[in-house]
Amino acid sequence: MLRVGVIRVISLKEREEVERHGKLIESFFPELRAISKCIQDQPHGVYDEETEALAALKVPRLAREIENSVDAIIVSCVADPGVAELRREVSVPVVGSGESLASIARALGGKVGVITITDGVPRPLRERLGDPPWKKVAGVCSTLDLKWKKEAVLQAAEHLLKEGCNVIALGCTGFSTIGIAPLIHRELGVVVLDPVVASGSVVYNLLVSKKVWG
Amino acid sequence: MLRVGVIRVISLKEREEVERHGKLIESFFPELRAISKCIQDQPHGVYDEETEALAALKVPRLAREIENSVDAIIVSCVADPGVAELRREVSVPVVGSGESLASIARALGGKVGVITITDGVPRPLRERLGDPPWKKVAGVCSTLDLKWKKEAVLQAAEHLLKEGCNVIALGCTGFSTIGIAPLIHRELGVVVLDPVVASGSVVYNLLVSKKVWG
Repeated sequence: MLRVGVIRVISLKEREEVERHGKLIESFFPELRAISKCIQDQPHGVYDEETEALAALKVPRLAREIENSVDAIIVSCVADPGVAELRREVSVPVVGSGESLASIARALGGKVGVITITDGVPRPLRERLGDPPWKKVAGVCSTLDLKWKKEAVLQAAEHLLKEGCNVIALGCTGFSTIGIAPLIHRELGVVVLDPVVASGSVVYNLLVSKKVWG
Repeated sequence: MLRVGVIRVISLKEREEVERHGKLIESFFPELRAISKCIQDQPHGVYDEETEALAALKVPRLAREIENSVDAIIVSCVADPGVAELRREVSVPVVGSGESLASIARALGGKVGVITITDGVPRPLRERLGDPPWKKVAGVCSTLDLKWKKEAVLQAAEHLLKEGCNVIALGCTGFSTIGIAPLIHRELGVVVLDPVVASGSVVYNLLVSKKVWG
């Protein structure tokens, strides 16, 4: 069993909402236990450079609160805000959803296309996947809009398939919140990678490494 | 359950030896089933450019034999010989131990050092980890020598720790064969990444993605 701190970069009131990503991780990795926290005063989350920079300042503070009660920390945002800073400050492994998604996409091979909520690909994906093709979901300004836009998400995925992609990476953890991966796979038959599950995979890899050590 | 073809790049006579990496993967990922094959006429495996090029020619041939009875293929060598060629030729995901090891090391963060059996870091690790520090195990010419050199492996790991590394990546699947990761972790208390287990992790990530799709 491994305890993982899950830091949400959106301010949420309901406990159930704060814990949504953690519960998703626990459902696929029953050996992980999630402890979820969210940053304050960002009701729309991270959707541009300014909100990313703000989140990067708040994430380390929140991480220090839980550092001693977890074995690893996930920053549950594809922009990985504060991940580099956190690594210098805390003693447990720090995992960003963006890095995780990129790592798994690369390791699987294939031609990866990214669906985004912003004009452009989040930096961790851009750097690791070498400027991949991308498509913004039409009519979306922040992660909160996604739940009304499932049809537009499917259209973005279809656009990327037509451009020759055979792997779809969901470039915002808001796609995990609305649980859209199964729908895309069912409708379009393509490999779809969910960023929250990807971060769970990376922490699970750490658990497996620990098992290897005996 | 996912069936995974495990291609060994060393010619082995005993079935038990051919299946060693596959069994290691099954032991950590009970939902994976390994089907193991080894290339012919390379009793010392891959240990320089020439033997790597030879293996890269043989791997696709072997892969085509098992392509229709597996859901994914692992090339169980940190040099990833034939992986790029295979991806163009077969319809199932192809996973190289080198890429997998690098992906997991990067996603975990930390300062990675590589223990090698050759003078230099295998290309997949060099490319993805940005010329990491490395140390060759003294007195080793091929993977077969490793089983007599556990003390020298520990010395190589110690050398990397003194250089400031806090993650050890085992840069040859021969380290998996002798099961040295637990010994290094026990003796030096450092994070150690096993390349065969890493490739299993990546295939397991694919299985998890399939579960996500429902």
